[in-house]
Amino acid sequence: MKLATLKDGTRDGMLAVVSRDLKTAVLADTIAPTLQRALDDWTFIAPQLEDLYLQLNADRALRSFAFDPKQCMAPLPRAFQWADGSAYVNHVELVRKSRNAEMPASFWHEPLMYQGASDDLIGPTDDIVLGSEEWGIDFEGEVAVITGDVPMGCDADEAGKQIRLLMLVNDVSLRHLIPPELAKGFGFVQSKPASSFSPVAVTPDELGSAWKASKVHLPLRTSWNGTVVGQPNAGVDMVFSFAQLVEHLAKTRNVRAGSIVGSGTVSNKDASKGYTCIAEKRCLEVIAGGVATTPFMQFGDTVKIEMLDAAGKSIFGAIIQQVKQAPPMIKRGRAA
Amino acid sequence: MKLATLKDGTRDGMLAVVSRDLKTAVLADTIAPTLQRALDDWTFIAPQLEDLYLQLNADRALRSFAFDPKQCMAPLPRAFQWADGSAYVNHVELVRKSRNAEMPASFWHEPLMYQGASDDLIGPTDDIVLGSEEWGIDFEGEVAVITGDVPMGCDADEAGKQIRLLMLVNDVSLRHLIPPELAKGFGFVQSKPASSFSPVAVTPDELGSAWKASKVHLPLRTSWNGTVVGQPNAGVDMVFSFAQLVEHLAKTRNVRAGSIVGSGTVSNKDASKGYTCIAEKRCLEVIAGGVATTPFMQFGDTVKIEMLDAAGKSIFGAIIQQVKQAPPMIKRGRAA
Repeated sequence: MKLATLKDGTRDGMLAVVSRDLKTAVLADTIAPTLQRALDDWTFIAPQLEDLYLQLNADRALRSFAFDPKQCMAPLPRAFQWADGSAYVNHVELVRKSRNAEMPASFWHEPLMYQGASDDLIGPTDDIVLGSEEWGIDFEGEVAVITGDVPMGCDADEAGKQIRLLMLVNDVSLRHLIPPELAKGFGFVQSKPASSFSPVAVTPDELGSAWKASKVHLPLRTSWNGTVVGQPNAGVDMVFSFAQLVEHLAKTRNVRAGSIVGSGTVSNKDASKGYTCIAEKRCLEVIAGGVATTPFMQFGDTVKIEMLDAAGKSIFGAIIQQVKQAPPMIKRGRAA
Repeated sequence: MKLATLKDGTRDGMLAVVSRDLKTAVLADTIAPTLQRALDDWTFIAPQLEDLYLQLNADRALRSFAFDPKQCMAPLPRAFQWADGSAYVNHVELVRKSRNAEMPASFWHEPLMYQGASDDLIGPTDDIVLGSEEWGIDFEGEVAVITGDVPMGCDADEAGKQIRLLMLVNDVSLRHLIPPELAKGFGFVQSKPASSFSPVAVTPDELGSAWKASKVHLPLRTSWNGTVVGQPNAGVDMVFSFAQLVEHLAKTRNVRAGSIVGSGTVSNKDASKGYTCIAEKRCLEVIAGGVATTPFMQFGDTVKIEMLDAAGKSIFGAIIQQVKQAPPMIKRGRAA
């Protein structure tokens, strides 16, 4: 099934079931008010949502309405966890190579992962509002899963069974703020602003045979200012499956329902597949000619991230965002 | 006022107001069911909770009961953000010195901070359940704040106004897993298991004159297996105030209500004040004699972290935890 969270003025939005063709939706608030609440009690709630999904697809759902991605918040507008892997090690190797650094061999057999901010996840068509172009604004096209409760120390097999939903992500990155943060060793704080997510989250069965061995075997298509710049296959060159990423995350602690785990920037070794982040393009330029010539995003730029099924239909709906300059800070008159 | 979250079998627990002397409590569920819900609408909810707090302190609250810290979850059992600073730069310098590494000078004027996991924050008397003593189990005594909504790019003055509550933290750390994770640059994932928090969260006014310039000017007392090992003053040698830590966090993104921001391990330059994490003690041993002799925690060990006011009364209640071995993983029969 396909689920979305609609804007209603609240912090967590309103849960809706969306039809397979993304054309209609119906509120699911009588089943569960929010997606987090559904995830909190998934085995009880999911079958009821599935029933509603079947009715909607058969055009038999009461009070259905046209689905508008512009009304979507992130499926989880705020989550209790967002942990992002770097499963496409090819991407990591390219980045290192471009700065003449050796990538540790361990990166091929142990996932690289960082803990991201999850208090303010933004919707698929929300603007990317940032203070300065000087920060080196970049997109990163990724796939992510939402988990149920994953017990500490479980293996990949068990971890994989707790994958509830899948989404697309634009993991916005501020490239010029990354080197000083990485040098400190403590990961990303300022260099990873709010990430945005696809209009709908889908259960793995929606992917059919494209969901195999805990990977999504379909191209992820990224367009920048209207031009397709990448369509690498998310199932190719993914060194760690989602099950393995979740296993890694759960090694020393329980991972609780509603945790989002990302794949990292999708990247294929076959460079003809293009790129899903500008940084990779720039790395290739540096490796080829010593100088990066493609600039990062400017205010006004747009990015679109989408995944189509074998029949050419959008699975998750599209992330379509524009970069905008933050207005100058206005001091509030009094402590709120 | 003082607020606690009581165990009721749900994921988020039940909000209670606790008396200043920590002796009695009263459910606040008719005002706000959970602490997060109170934080979501603080300006409306807080005055109602304050009224109840006044009644409770005057012994006029209906249906009050004896307050038992064992019934407490973390004030926020799951939070949308846990970002931990390293404001006691002295501690960072000692760690570096013990491994003959130079600390970058920038650490004195820009906060070091990492994004931590917040999906499973544990209660003040919950066991620290871990898989192996070989991981190098350590406690870290800290102070933390909970924020309201902090707008992107605001200054420390504005950020400080959004500090709603204060807590104590035991930021459990797995010392032997840290070096390989830090070497990758992506911060802590496996080396920082679930953190635990004090029985109550308190509004800054509860600290009286000890809350000054956005720092807590009181000793933080840590006991290990019943022996006091540290009582450094949290207001001394704190290079970055909580307001500055929140400002740092909010540089490139909006920080949403219910975000927890930690001080990092409390540490004074005056070594006679002892230590609030074993790693620091071991660093001092290495610097003095070349070898760390104090072992990390073993299964069965206990740690107690508390802060007393000038009159010797506990402000937050005590974190009292025992380290226990995780039972072997039992595979569940079917996908949940």
